[in-house]
Amino acid sequence: MKPMLASALTLAVTFTVSAGALAQTASPLSAQDSNPETMGWMQGFPPAADKTIRFTDPDFFTFPKLRWTVCHFRQLMPNVGVSKGSAGARPLPLALDPGLDSVRFTPLGADTTMTWNEAFAANYTDGILVLHHGRVVYERYDGCLKPDGLHAVMSVTKSIAGLLGEMLVAEGKLDDAALVGSIIPELKDSAFGDATVRQVMDMTTALAYSEDADLRTYSMAGSPLPKPKDYTGPRSYFEYLQTVKKAGTHGEAFAYKTINADALGWLIARSSGQSVAELFSERIWSRIGAEREAFFTADSIGTPFAGGGFNVSLRDLARLGQLMLDEGRVGSEQIVPAAAIARIRNGGEAALFANAGYTRLPGWSYGGQWWVSNDEHGAYAARGVYGQTIWVDPKADMVIVRLASYPVAANAANDPTSLPAYRAVAEYLMANDGAPLAR
Amino acid sequence: MKPMLASALTLAVTFTVSAGALAQTASPLSAQDSNPETMGWMQGFPPAADKTIRFTDPDFFTFPKLRWTVCHFRQLMPNVGVSKGSAGARPLPLALDPGLDSVRFTPLGADTTMTWNEAFAANYTDGILVLHHGRVVYERYDGCLKPDGLHAVMSVTKSIAGLLGEMLVAEGKLDDAALVGSIIPELKDSAFGDATVRQVMDMTTALAYSEDADLRTYSMAGSPLPKPKDYTGPRSYFEYLQTVKKAGTHGEAFAYKTINADALGWLIARSSGQSVAELFSERIWSRIGAEREAFFTADSIGTPFAGGGFNVSLRDLARLGQLMLDEGRVGSEQIVPAAAIARIRNGGEAALFANAGYTRLPGWSYGGQWWVSNDEHGAYAARGVYGQTIWVDPKADMVIVRLASYPVAANAANDPTSLPAYRAVAEYLMANDGAPLAR
Repeated sequence: MKPMLASALTLAVTFTVSAGALAQTASPLSAQDSNPETMGWMQGFPPAADKTIRFTDPDFFTFPKLRWTVCHFRQLMPNVGVSKGSAGARPLPLALDPGLDSVRFTPLGADTTMTWNEAFAANYTDGILVLHHGRVVYERYDGCLKPDGLHAVMSVTKSIAGLLGEMLVAEGKLDDAALVGSIIPELKDSAFGDATVRQVMDMTTALAYSEDADLRTYSMAGSPLPKPKDYTGPRSYFEYLQTVKKAGTHGEAFAYKTINADALGWLIARSSGQSVAELFSERIWSRIGAEREAFFTADSIGTPFAGGGFNVSLRDLARLGQLMLDEGRVGSEQIVPAAAIARIRNGGEAALFANAGYTRLPGWSYGGQWWVSNDEHGAYAARGVYGQTIWVDPKADMVIVRLASYPVAANAANDPTSLPAYRAVAEYLMANDGAPLAR
Repeated sequence: MKPMLASALTLAVTFTVSAGALAQTASPLSAQDSNPETMGWMQGFPPAADKTIRFTDPDFFTFPKLRWTVCHFRQLMPNVGVSKGSAGARPLPLALDPGLDSVRFTPLGADTTMTWNEAFAANYTDGILVLHHGRVVYERYDGCLKPDGLHAVMSVTKSIAGLLGEMLVAEGKLDDAALVGSIIPELKDSAFGDATVRQVMDMTTALAYSEDADLRTYSMAGSPLPKPKDYTGPRSYFEYLQTVKKAGTHGEAFAYKTINADALGWLIARSSGQSVAELFSERIWSRIGAEREAFFTADSIGTPFAGGGFNVSLRDLARLGQLMLDEGRVGSEQIVPAAAIARIRNGGEAALFANAGYTRLPGWSYGGQWWVSNDEHGAYAARGVYGQTIWVDPKADMVIVRLASYPVAANAANDPTSLPAYRAVAEYLMANDGAPLAR
């Protein structure tokens, strides 16, 4: 395989790895030993040849190199900006609580406990921030990430597309009962043609697409790199989607397939007249008081990768989580209809999720491209491979955002040292509760 | 030639076209007829096949497609951001003067006059803004550019590198009398080895490099695209610079060669420990009250293209011009040493410039990678192909910035309808002078 194909393939594999694809890396380097600064990646002008990472390297997004790459997608591939407008950042009030580091929890399936502090390195965390009552109670960085740096959020991107989709639905601009083919005629003869918008948003479409067999074609279509001379396949995400065939009946099972997010991105663009990046900037990013301009990686025609291309600072990801927790409000301004957030919190159909094989996520569902725990806190999440997370806990009035570069892609690998930790911190904060901050 | 080579080549040709290389396009489309919206480039999701522009198209940066491309480099190729920090924009006070549109001037070599308004379309202007006494007296957009959009400034980038270089010299961090080889040992055996930093900054190096014969290798080195399988040449700007041979004696003549800017970029990185993009962000972009994050296009190892890769909004380019006019101050804060700006205003050696063939620029010189007119207004400029300009007129207390997409690359083509227009507007503003704004 040519290097450029291999790298595109690697990228897509890691963007889209499914629940069942939990690969095991034999004794990977520790978080400390794999720290990109320790490894020496891309230091100096120029970096040493054996410390150089290029987009065309077949392993540019494989551990441990990925620990550098997650912070540097912009310099590796084309992308589109998400402007935050010309206003300054909205302050995130600080109320740091050193007590969090001592919070103990029992990892899933473990006999012994672990502290929040120990989980930081165990999860190869690049940055984690906890908001309680809208105040920063914990904020910590490592690896390639700095407070003003950007980091890939991988499939958290899908939840951003889902939020935009639910917003358009709540505003009556996108009919979630409509057939996709009625909105995008180019998709009429594809698997998506007779699926409803809702089925795409909840990933209950029946698609003849597997991350294994069809990945190469999908990756080639979305890659911004030149195609081989004899290439005749699809040359963009939109072209690829037109080739997808149906397998089974829509609406009968949840199946996590990235191409649903790309189809939703197309639905958003067609119904709003703006790309996912443009709509997100105009409706949300320029109105939540973001600190940094964010970006989406893009295919060769500038389509933002709705399935996994968003890159953002940790604090700004926290602002997005707080927007969810505040049911679409920023201060006194309702920037997203509360009905859109309510729909996301409500989740998808748990019965359709149950057979999808997520043993770490019993009782959960997936709806509007968000993961909903259905626990007694009403917690829900945006999740991306290698540990990217927005965790919203309405009962605890808490948001946790985490950016990470775990050696294994599928989150089933880090869920044991993550999910119970989130809950333990929520309970700690509720037990030590102060007065909520007016907002 | 393979498409990817051709496109890289096109890019470099247009970045670096020299004074003598004034090609004539036979009857190009008018500004109105070549407007990217009129042409229909990249409209819709997806755009029509014959209206799609990709980085791998051989003509992606040829008129008329270039009129779209100048605003969209970010989605075409990898790049590095220039953060503006988390503060809001510094207001640009408005004092719009509709009288400017009627200002008349005589184009160089012409018998009849033209108005400022007529020059707008004649120069294929995408955006032009005039600051007088620090206030916006004129601001107008067309083509692909919007007030919040970014546009390539081409070789104006060299002047940004020059500003950073002069700043480091003024601060004693870079010795302009030192030999390049003493600062960058990797360049010791190249043509740059026994050139002084000053000779690089003033482009009086004697380099066996022509934009014709050596362009292909240079372009391939700097291209972020995959190299052919059998490629053994340089794979970055820095690697290319090491291959340049000497031709003649340094310091004897001005010769405009883009690779001097790349060498200066390397000198800046080596002496400051930061890339041109990082240093520019920390020292200038985060302190001038910019509205938008800017960016540099990058090679395959993330090196910002110091010779021509900067992209910026019109208003922020005006803020940069105002910084020059205000001798390095923003409000009451001195962010660049006044000595650095004074050195730039002073220009290079006019005698070394005189024989370089710039018939439109009699009596000018080039120093610190800025163009200095030596006229009685003390006007000086940053200039990039297709009409990109920062024009600083100290006597009139005026800055003009222009972003454009002229059909012909070399500015000799648009100088006749630009240079006398700048002077005429300066004289108009001086004749109608109000009280200077306190700043």
